Amino acid sequence: MTHSDLLRRGEAAANISLASLLGDPVRHARLNTEAKGLYFDFSRAKLSQADLDALLSHAKAIGLEQARTDLFAGKAINSTEDRAVLHMALRHPARDFYAKGEAISDAVRSGKAAATRFAQGVRAGTITAKDGRPFKAIVHLGIGGSDLGPRLVYEALAPTQGTDITLRFAANIEPGELAAALVGLDPRETLILCVSKTFTTIETLENLKAARAWLRAGIGADDSAHLVAISAAPAKTAQASFAPDRVFDFKEWVGGRYSLWSAVGLSCEIALGSEVIEQMHAGAASMDTLFETAEFDQNPVVLAGLIGWWNRTCMGYKSRAIIPYAKRLRLLPQFLQQLEMESNGKSVGLDGRAVATSGPVVWGAEGTNAQHAFFQHLHQSPDVTPVEFIALANDQENAPERTRMTLANALAQAEALTHGKSLKEVTDSMRQAGANPEQIEALAPHRVFSGNRPSSFVLMEQLSPFNFGAYLAFCEHRAFVEGRLWGVNSFDQWGVELGKVIASEIDHDLCLGASPQRDPSSTAMIERIRAWRVIGENKI
Amino acid sequence: MTHSDLLRRGEAAANISLASLLGDPVRHARLNTEAKGLYFDFSRAKLSQADLDALLSHAKAIGLEQARTDLFAGKAINSTEDRAVLHMALRHPARDFYAKGEAISDAVRSGKAAATRFAQGVRAGTITAKDGRPFKAIVHLGIGGSDLGPRLVYEALAPTQGTDITLRFAANIEPGELAAALVGLDPRETLILCVSKTFTTIETLENLKAARAWLRAGIGADDSAHLVAISAAPAKTAQASFAPDRVFDFKEWVGGRYSLWSAVGLSCEIALGSEVIEQMHAGAASMDTLFETAEFDQNPVVLAGLIGWWNRTCMGYKSRAIIPYAKRLRLLPQFLQQLEMESNGKSVGLDGRAVATSGPVVWGAEGTNAQHAFFQHLHQSPDVTPVEFIALANDQENAPERTRMTLANALAQAEALTHGKSLKEVTDSMRQAGANPEQIEALAPHRVFSGNRPSSFVLMEQLSPFNFGAYLAFCEHRAFVEGRLWGVNSFDQWGVELGKVIASEIDHDLCLGASPQRDPSSTAMIERIRAWRVIGENKI
Repeated sequence: MTHSDLLRRGEAAANISLASLLGDPVRHARLNTEAKGLYFDFSRAKLSQADLDALLSHAKAIGLEQARTDLFAGKAINSTEDRAVLHMALRHPARDFYAKGEAISDAVRSGKAAATRFAQGVRAGTITAKDGRPFKAIVHLGIGGSDLGPRLVYEALAPTQGTDITLRFAANIEPGELAAALVGLDPRETLILCVSKTFTTIETLENLKAARAWLRAGIGADDSAHLVAISAAPAKTAQASFAPDRVFDFKEWVGGRYSLWSAVGLSCEIALGSEVIEQMHAGAASMDTLFETAEFDQNPVVLAGLIGWWNRTCMGYKSRAIIPYAKRLRLLPQFLQQLEMESNGKSVGLDGRAVATSGPVVWGAEGTNAQHAFFQHLHQSPDVTPVEFIALANDQENAPERTRMTLANALAQAEALTHGKSLKEVTDSMRQAGANPEQIEALAPHRVFSGNRPSSFVLMEQLSPFNFGAYLAFCEHRAFVEGRLWGVNSFDQWGVELGKVIASEIDHDLCLGASPQRDPSSTAMIERIRAWRVIGENKI
Repeated sequence: MTHSDLLRRGEAAANISLASLLGDPVRHARLNTEAKGLYFDFSRAKLSQADLDALLSHAKAIGLEQARTDLFAGKAINSTEDRAVLHMALRHPARDFYAKGEAISDAVRSGKAAATRFAQGVRAGTITAKDGRPFKAIVHLGIGGSDLGPRLVYEALAPTQGTDITLRFAANIEPGELAAALVGLDPRETLILCVSKTFTTIETLENLKAARAWLRAGIGADDSAHLVAISAAPAKTAQASFAPDRVFDFKEWVGGRYSLWSAVGLSCEIALGSEVIEQMHAGAASMDTLFETAEFDQNPVVLAGLIGWWNRTCMGYKSRAIIPYAKRLRLLPQFLQQLEMESNGKSVGLDGRAVATSGPVVWGAEGTNAQHAFFQHLHQSPDVTPVEFIALANDQENAPERTRMTLANALAQAEALTHGKSLKEVTDSMRQAGANPEQIEALAPHRVFSGNRPSSFVLMEQLSPFNFGAYLAFCEHRAFVEGRLWGVNSFDQWGVELGKVIASEIDHDLCLGASPQRDPSSTAMIERIRAWRVIGENKI
């Protein structure tokens, strides 16, 4: 099965009726699977059993089995940076992993034990603030991978009522975010946790500077009892007067967007307790094992990856929408946006040659809210966007009826996208409702839903730490599978470099006026900013 | 200039060099404009002066001038619902508007005065809680247009420190959102403000029910002193025992996604003060007048609309990214997602015939955070996404340096998208940094940025209520202009109907088991949910 055969299959699939595909019970069984408290339904994908067979052969043909083996074996599959990819090692306490041949699991275990000791000390009040009182708040400073993962974990798993320790986040260099994070906190009982692998991330260091000024105003110049760093740059953290035993590192084989499993998750461990984190890791580990060992045709990660690739590359859908039906998973679209777009938004393949397609735009928002916002477009735009629904069978708020209605909405949207409502159905129902022929003629076309729009559905039994961990690992591995199908390195991010370089030039130009290498648009904008900015007596 | 001429122009524009276009100072002047504390730079659009001329003629040819006149004249331009579109009437206290010929402005003025009296009474402590104490918190219940607008306004304009009255929001039917909104509030000093035009919105009524149970547990059965409704269904609010003088209405000529200018904004008026809201209205009114009176070639709304249409329809870009460089504007992408996707995500035109293209997917997140999340894709994906940058020249947090760095980042990203970095530039800079030929060969292709990617930039002098109001009105009118270019009715939303009907069927099936008309995917999912759900002794 060649790549161009699959493209032709995709073209043909544009005309397939999803409703008729759904009538095939064998196909349904092949596209539904339950695992680890999760139930995956891929049967609303627009592909036939023959298409699925073609995809499964394609996965073998491109060497996905070997790639999976290489991933878990710690080969340097992040080839442009010559690194292994082994965030899985962080969630398998009993298994030994090797990064590029080197045993890493002893160090993982001792690093993890140190972080857990620290977390438990803070929770128990044996590790205290400068004046001996227990910490009541943590401000987590980090950006990108050092921010989105912990933020999602905290929102998903924090109890709604009565957390002992408040956890807040600040990422942006823009001053509004830290200001909001500090509102109402008392520096005398606040721990600042600063995450930067290189300890050079400008946003995080600026937030650290401002947070320390706030801290020192409350507790005096010696603020080290209130500081923790997660960093792989001990010289730099020491220079910033972080105590060495308050610096937790993470290794080069943990990419930023997978770092929530490392000490980057320390703030969550303090706020949620080590047991919650352990269960989350256990769930992820069980998904690792499933991904690693299951045959492709029974492997939810592989199935989801094949369908994701099919949707973008064979069907031509340029984005995918993520709709979690739970407030607690509100940040999931943002998290997956980073995970998928930074991993697979690439222009060249592993061989350095241009790729025709790579990962899609990923976006979304929580349902049912989104139904009242952009579902109009999902149902009636000429452009089709595949939708990924995520919902919970049980809630933690003791509101079973409302949870049932929430589920009903999620299922209903998937069904409406599949079947739509034809002109005849609209006309009949308007006639039944008493509309006259003129009204029907004028209005009916606006009420037609073309349907035949694909979606997928992941149901969680409940949002337990275990199930949530399993789901996150599912998402991570799927991005890897998709990346292999596009033939790209999912673990680098060279595309973020250029903007940083230019930003520091423009920062200079904003102080002194546009330098000659700026283009006319930047030059005019810099002049406008300089005219508008009023800083005390000076302008900068 | 016919439609197909423009499509041909778009195809040709794919090969235009944005960098060379920028060298034309006359073009630059035509695509930059300052108005109402806002500075618009459209010069990074991928179009020549000839393309711009063609677009401007097209706007005249399709009757945009008459459409604009009809809008402000209160004609029934929402033709499928036979309604005028006159949210502008809410922000012009001194001007008389007519909806389908009927004078409406006296009623607007008296309705507004009543809402302001109420807001000021609550703020002054003359309108009190049941036991006479002042209100300290408002919980705003509403969804979609009754939620996103007020939420955005509150986050954008609320002072960071020391608000007297806390304002929280709950939209979702899922129980987690209201639970989070009520945490830490005292029912004895909390006002519940419920927004539903028809008073039948299931999410809002469920939240009201739960909020009232919480309220009554704290203050007793008579809770009417703590209730306000914004609704056009007085019989239903009376039945729910809302006091008649606590019900504020809004009219059929105010669409949900434009309703923040109506009494739907009452919670913001209470929390932020009437003066802030008045200034915001004044800013919007000034943009209304600019849109209404400026020649098309000097009209930022028309220019932005033409470019938005050009990007989707002539250039084929299927989504647009909104990147506000300010925490306070964090919700702007979500707000615009609704405004644009619900307005223009349509399958048929005003004439009832299918359209080939309509509004794009709208998505985004705040910078600089997004730079560390999905900018990889924006810079290096083979798919091009036009980006809209929004930034503030001055902050309100007294952090001028950080604001300058924020601005530098926004400008730098726009420049990087324009110019990219060629293989030669990458190779040269790697060689200068001491890389050997093998390293350069292996790595250089991954570090290339193709550039030539369009963007636009809106700079605000500061995020004052006036400027913010002007910007919102700019966005609203732009969606109207774009809708006319696509030939669709931007003011209905028939695409949200079908899901509601099916949801109530499925809710029933979740209780009793899947009924025969469910498809196999829904049937299996309903069975799985019923197996997993454990509610006390029963399962539902």
